[in-house]
Amino acid sequence: MSISGRTRLVFLAGDPIDHAKGFAEYADALAAAGLDAAYLPAHVPAGQLGPFLAGMRWMRNLAGIVATVPHKREARALAVPDEAARRAGSANLLRPGAGGGWECSMVDGAGFLIATDAAGIELAGRRVQLLGGGGAGRAVSMAIAERGPAALAVHDPDPARAAALVADLRAEFPSLRAESALGTSEVLVNCSPLGMGDDARMPVAEALIPQGGAVYDIVNRADTPLLVAARRHGCRTDHGRSMMLAQIPLVLRFFFGAA
Amino acid sequence: MSISGRTRLVFLAGDPIDHAKGFAEYADALAAAGLDAAYLPAHVPAGQLGPFLAGMRWMRNLAGIVATVPHKREARALAVPDEAARRAGSANLLRPGAGGGWECSMVDGAGFLIATDAAGIELAGRRVQLLGGGGAGRAVSMAIAERGPAALAVHDPDPARAAALVADLRAEFPSLRAESALGTSEVLVNCSPLGMGDDARMPVAEALIPQGGAVYDIVNRADTPLLVAARRHGCRTDHGRSMMLAQIPLVLRFFFGAA
Repeated sequence: MSISGRTRLVFLAGDPIDHAKGFAEYADALAAAGLDAAYLPAHVPAGQLGPFLAGMRWMRNLAGIVATVPHKREARALAVPDEAARRAGSANLLRPGAGGGWECSMVDGAGFLIATDAAGIELAGRRVQLLGGGGAGRAVSMAIAERGPAALAVHDPDPARAAALVADLRAEFPSLRAESALGTSEVLVNCSPLGMGDDARMPVAEALIPQGGAVYDIVNRADTPLLVAARRHGCRTDHGRSMMLAQIPLVLRFFFGAA
Repeated sequence: MSISGRTRLVFLAGDPIDHAKGFAEYADALAAAGLDAAYLPAHVPAGQLGPFLAGMRWMRNLAGIVATVPHKREARALAVPDEAARRAGSANLLRPGAGGGWECSMVDGAGFLIATDAAGIELAGRRVQLLGGGGAGRAVSMAIAERGPAALAVHDPDPARAAALVADLRAEFPSLRAESALGTSEVLVNCSPLGMGDDARMPVAEALIPQGGAVYDIVNRADTPLLVAARRHGCRTDHGRSMMLAQIPLVLRFFFGAA
């Protein structure tokens, strides 16, 4: 990457950010698209996305901000949403909008569907257990709902958060069998941050791994404790790297109108 | 440059910024110092450095901000200064300080002295004409004063700005012969932005170029109209590139305590 005074900037805003991945992949994609732009980390503490954005609004060469944990719900609250962000109630893309404000989108759901399709993980007609009702979990659950699962159970350590997401799912998809629950399934999807970076925790008891089913862990590591156990149980597995890669063209389109 | 989630960021904040130089040189210096850091442009409009800084305070991986035209006086006003910034009344380096504030330094003067020494441009005992009483001009004039010139004349299109700088020079250097004037000299120093980027204007009438003397143009181009004319008049010349290069180690020390 060669920086000049004309280089436009994209930031990945998160906390923690040390273990974030994708910088080389974004650099390659920007170069391949012929864009003079750089993709960079921004370590922004929880709850401070708003004041950070207020300052970034004055960086005229800002192309956009990718919001990751823990900023996705706040990102939605701070910007005018597109349909995917409105439905999810969370956003992972922010770009400067008209009148000094921000516009947001949410491509976690689209990225998840592209990734699971490519991995041969079937969602239609399946009983799906989703873990984590945060910003990514909201978007992924809406994407799963689009595919028409037999049932969609949502679990979150915060029961109110799970209940709120289930209510939103039912409002968006009235015929969906959605509930706040934790039980057996055919497809298990982890959208909690457990397993990220140095975190070696399992997001769920091993007994709930669907023997011979499928497990998708949105954490961008092939070797989270969940995935290691899932492979031992004969599951089809995939992880957040495929979702991250699937999103890159969507991100470039939102920020640069190209890709 | 290879970006990771641990990369610390340095921004060059200015307006305009399209034609700014030094990105490759900073990238090389950061790599040579073994620092995982990137040097990037930030196009911040005049008068908006304050709100920009307020947001950047939340970027925990920010190493510092290099302020260039038109932000150097505002940079000083927004931060706790070191001695060089206090004396100049302007600053070109900002780093996060204790308690959510900023600390600033001004290394334009030190860079100018290193550069002119290397170019064999003598200041002590010389009659010096300085053009431009902005942020850089303030720092460079204080640096020239340290060397003990025979006289130091300051010119600015805004007479009040020149008069204020002369008053500050006299306060700092009571024995200095300083005045707000534009006339003949032995060393002519351009600290105005005329000649930057696509700007083809001369900052001074050709008659005032010191035949056989020296001309230093802080604009980072070897071919400003002033320098082209100065070489035609047999002057020893140098330009902002040497001043920029001389500052790099000082900048890295202020931001990283190293190099």
